[in-house]
Amino acid sequence: MAVYTEVADEELAAFLAQYDLGPLMSCKGIAEGVENSNYLLHTGAGYFILTLYEKRVNAAELPFFIGLMDHLAARGVSCPLPVRNWAGVALGELAGRPAALVTFLEGVSVKRPDARHCAMVGEALARLHAAGADYATPRPNALSLAGWPPLFAQAEGRADRVQAGLEAVIASELSTLESRWPQGLPGGVIHADLFPDNVFFLAGALSGLIDFYFACNDALAYDLAICLNAWCFEADGSFNVTKGGAMIAGYERVRPLEPAERAALPTLARGAALRFLLTRLVDWLDTPEGALVRKKDPLEYVRKLRFHQQATSLRDYGAQT
Amino acid sequence: MAVYTEVADEELAAFLAQYDLGPLMSCKGIAEGVENSNYLLHTGAGYFILTLYEKRVNAAELPFFIGLMDHLAARGVSCPLPVRNWAGVALGELAGRPAALVTFLEGVSVKRPDARHCAMVGEALARLHAAGADYATPRPNALSLAGWPPLFAQAEGRADRVQAGLEAVIASELSTLESRWPQGLPGGVIHADLFPDNVFFLAGALSGLIDFYFACNDALAYDLAICLNAWCFEADGSFNVTKGGAMIAGYERVRPLEPAERAALPTLARGAALRFLLTRLVDWLDTPEGALVRKKDPLEYVRKLRFHQQATSLRDYGAQT
Repeated sequence: MAVYTEVADEELAAFLAQYDLGPLMSCKGIAEGVENSNYLLHTGAGYFILTLYEKRVNAAELPFFIGLMDHLAARGVSCPLPVRNWAGVALGELAGRPAALVTFLEGVSVKRPDARHCAMVGEALARLHAAGADYATPRPNALSLAGWPPLFAQAEGRADRVQAGLEAVIASELSTLESRWPQGLPGGVIHADLFPDNVFFLAGALSGLIDFYFACNDALAYDLAICLNAWCFEADGSFNVTKGGAMIAGYERVRPLEPAERAALPTLARGAALRFLLTRLVDWLDTPEGALVRKKDPLEYVRKLRFHQQATSLRDYGAQT
Repeated sequence: MAVYTEVADEELAAFLAQYDLGPLMSCKGIAEGVENSNYLLHTGAGYFILTLYEKRVNAAELPFFIGLMDHLAARGVSCPLPVRNWAGVALGELAGRPAALVTFLEGVSVKRPDARHCAMVGEALARLHAAGADYATPRPNALSLAGWPPLFAQAEGRADRVQAGLEAVIASELSTLESRWPQGLPGGVIHADLFPDNVFFLAGALSGLIDFYFACNDALAYDLAICLNAWCFEADGSFNVTKGGAMIAGYERVRPLEPAERAALPTLARGAALRFLLTRLVDWLDTPEGALVRKKDPLEYVRKLRFHQQATSLRDYGAQT
């Protein structure tokens, strides 16, 4: 949930005057994304999302994200399409922040995905990987193996406030992953945050993917590991192998996994669980009490991590091998 | 800013199945209103606002508000029109809360209104009063004179935490208003919360009024006093007589004030300032730190109150007498 920055109507009018979108008819702050302020605009030309990039986003990286959405949309991925102004530029400034307009995508995200949703997400993820294969701008994943120790350091000495023994769990997992993190897997652009909030469905079909602001270059199978974490666990913490199997099969219908990727998946899933555990832990400890943000529970990912620690092969995730 | 209740997609689908609105195409939590959760829906039939009524709203009073919007819309006031389901009912239940769908109004609210906006608001307010004159359902104003001492009691002993001396200022003002609060002024349905957030403009004209959840029966001129407080002060705390004069003239173009109303206006304006001072004060003191609400500064209304205490006639508000 967001909307951190309020935009005055005159400022917005001046911003929109740079675009060929007709008159502004409405502007609603929407509760979407946690990193940026988002507004749903209705103008003479239709519906658009206006994003103001807040402090967590590095402005120097915005051309990567804008360019990626352009690139993916041009290759048939249903994602927001950046709108260019009269000068042909898609990135502007509003209320003292970098700002961009993108097309509005119809669709509704699901709170309790079923196996069919998981299959569609697996397939869409593989299509995203295929479409991104020739995207030339690189962006290393700051939240992969090398990024975890500094995150842990931010929480160090405080993790046990959240759960007794948590610090030792994380330290041990970090050490294990450092010793066995897979190298040389097929890589490319990954979404890196394809949670149910970021996927829309319409009339029983997947209608779009949003929120590319964690996209980066990394092992493609790591993106699938993130999705298994985000989509296939039940509220009680158990892993649903029907959903996992459907997601992996959906992915492989478009891009079959290589043997090295299949072998690495349990380790990649542990890494993905640790990544979300660490960022949630730091947010939990560092978010001031009065902030307009709903904090997410880091312990959800401790439970997921435990499952992955016991998994030995893709079969534990429901894949037919 | 709101959106307190998250609605699962299946629950929403079941709710919408009771209406003749076609398929759901999108649903965005919007940052509108502070009392309820609001969603902007796109369905086959167009755009709608879905409101879930949170704890502050008394469910027994909802038929008053729904009926009022129906009544006003039928008399040409541009306000949200409640949508009835297959059974002809406009009030349902969703996510364990009373819920209603209303039509979506185009328009943009202004952050820094000018005198033209104030004139249009004055005129729209008078039209609202005229349209509401024959609305038969009564709802006493719980936030008028009799409601202020209990509010003050909620803050008592704590007001000076917000500003030294504030408790004495409020006690003295309460006592003054109790001795001179006007009786017998022309009454009827008032909006009671017509702040800039609740008025939309489109192409230079006022396009709609929203958020009728404080509407009640009271002196009509008290509603104008609320609007003078809400629209005609500058950020530095000074009262802008050009805006005030424009608002009063706009109002009187539709409904001329009676001599007793003109004489009472400075007192009504003091009362209106005290009312918002008290509710903001209680919210300030009682809102838990982690709540997803942006707290409003009660001291803004201390400064406004000081202005009204020195006003002696409508001329001090810019009216041509």
